Amino acid sequence: MGPSGFEALDLAGIFVFAVSGGLAAVNKRLDVVGMVVLAEITALGGGILRDLVIGDVPPTAFTSLGYVLAPLVAAVLVFFWHPQVTRVLPAVQLFDAAGLGLFCATGTLKALDHGLSPLHSVLLGVVTAVGGGILRDMLSGQIPTVLYDRQLYALPALLGASVVAAARALELHGAGVTAGAAVLAFSIRVLAMRHGWRTPRPRGVPD
Amino acid sequence: MGPSGFEALDLAGIFVFAVSGGLAAVNKRLDVVGMVVLAEITALGGGILRDLVIGDVPPTAFTSLGYVLAPLVAAVLVFFWHPQVTRVLPAVQLFDAAGLGLFCATGTLKALDHGLSPLHSVLLGVVTAVGGGILRDMLSGQIPTVLYDRQLYALPALLGASVVAAARALELHGAGVTAGAAVLAFSIRVLAMRHGWRTPRPRGVPD
Amino acid sequence: MGPSGFEALDLAGIFVFAVSGGLAAVNKRLDVVGMVVLAEITALGGGILRDLVIGDVPPTAFTSLGYVLAPLVAAVLVFFWHPQVTRVLPAVQLFDAAGLGLFCATGTLKALDHGLSPLHSVLLGVVTAVGGGILRDMLSGQIPTVLYDRQLYALPALLGASVVAAARALELHGAGVTAGAAVLAFSIRVLAMRHGWRTPRPRGVPD
Repeated sequence: MGPSGFEALDLAGIFVFAVSGGLAAVNKRLDVVGMVVLAEITALGGGILRDLVIGDVPPTAFTSLGYVLAPLVAAVLVFFWHPQVTRVLPAVQLFDAAGLGLFCATGTLKALDHGLSPLHSVLLGVVTAVGGGILRDMLSGQIPTVLYDRQLYALPALLGASVVAAARALELHGAGVTAGAAVLAFSIRVLAMRHGWRTPRPRGVPD
Repeated sequence: MGPSGFEALDLAGIFVFAVSGGLAAVNKRLDVVGMVVLAEITALGGGILRDLVIGDVPPTAFTSLGYVLAPLVAAVLVFFWHPQVTRVLPAVQLFDAAGLGLFCATGTLKALDHGLSPLHSVLLGVVTAVGGGILRDMLSGQIPTVLYDRQLYALPALLGASVVAAARALELHGAGVTAGAAVLAFSIRVLAMRHGWRTPRPRGVPD
Repeated sequence: MGPSGFEALDLAGIFVFAVSGGLAAVNKRLDVVGMVVLAEITALGGGILRDLVIGDVPPTAFTSLGYVLAPLVAAVLVFFWHPQVTRVLPAVQLFDAAGLGLFCATGTLKALDHGLSPLHSVLLGVVTAVGGGILRDMLSGQIPTVLYDRQLYALPALLGASVVAAARALELHGAGVTAGAAVLAFSIRVLAMRHGWRTPRPRGVPD
């Protein structure tokens, strides 16, 4: 897969994350401003946090036109057709899993390219993948879903990020590794949804 | 208007934003620490976010004495005389509108001067104007007002920021443009308050 | 005290802050992901904010292995043995006070070393000390404790930070000053807990 293939996937991932932000705005009965803000923050927040940390400023979200416009299109879509979007939610979740896989892999890669250690690059890969959703929930006035709902969401991202960092340590390069790690994280995420796999709670905390 | 005119207005805007932060602290029954923190964050948060994004570090708030002292004075004022401040709330809201107008204009200008695209500069102008209020509400444990209350608050800022960016694209420079954009955003904001203009909710979401 | 003494104390402070994050996760019934995230953010958040502001990127938390691993160890401890940890809470609070003292002093020092003014360095010293706890509470869906609970928590940090800045202004250097300021903030914090000293609320706000 060439760079333009990654770019198209990147925008697709951003778009789907923005849809999830827009749907959160509908649920919270926000207005058009809230919808646009949640769409943009959910889609771009993780990458912005990563870029601030590695010192790549302005962050990509503030240099690329498509990064700002894709969430805007998603916000318009959800604004007018949210009942229809809600009806195809399983498909949205599938695309969200694809975004998760892609962003954990590309986020880790970018951190490694900026000279961060494998451990810290994995951390930033996960931040790239789940940071936008955490900001979406904080802005919606609720505890971030990823912190309590016991779905496998951050863990597949952690796995995908680790594969990218391990491959780099083994001096394996190329888009194939990134794509493979993304597909792995995506697959685990989809399997976890299908089979209802759960993360553990601290010992002794009842369900 | 010369640079010192802008500077004085800037400090006035920061002061009024800080007053709104202090009043939020009274409403939430915070202590003196909460009051000072909310006053500082409400006043300086938007500009700090903008400066982190464009890479102008330390942000102006951390290099200027006045930027830190003005909110402190506002906090002292609200701490001792908040009943009186609440009584002149319409005046506070008028000054808040002035701060909104000024910050959307100067924020956009600074982003343009740092080489960001017109679209991204407009975005950062709006962040400068509304970012502090969003952080104030997040710290107060509530959904940011600007995301749901359907008042025209972010939209006048968007308009003022767009005028600044458009003027730059037409190679119009000078303080007159900035002042004009600020006055425009201020006027729309005040008209919206007077006439109760409302932003739309997503289609089909009942009032 | 040599640099390695400070380093060991630093890691100890991070560890104890992470324990407080882990305990918050137990209280909120978060899962393992929430526990690790809260442990890391509580421990490292203040220093990350400081480093972003002064432009020292990547922040120390993203270059040091120990900074990431210490909170992870704390999370594992709290995950399996939180009833035992809760039982020794007074000791945890004592260590937390030590972390508070240490971080306000070292945070101020780092800001001074990066050329910030005494006032802004004091501000960043306090941010270093209390920023992680504020982020912990925001992620837990509650108003940050430090803003309303009227305990002396930010104020001892402010005092310790001021001592470091004043010593620098008097051209007093050396680890003794930092250690002294840290011990002072620690002592005030412990005395405040013992004697139930309270910060004031805005005038006229009933208890």
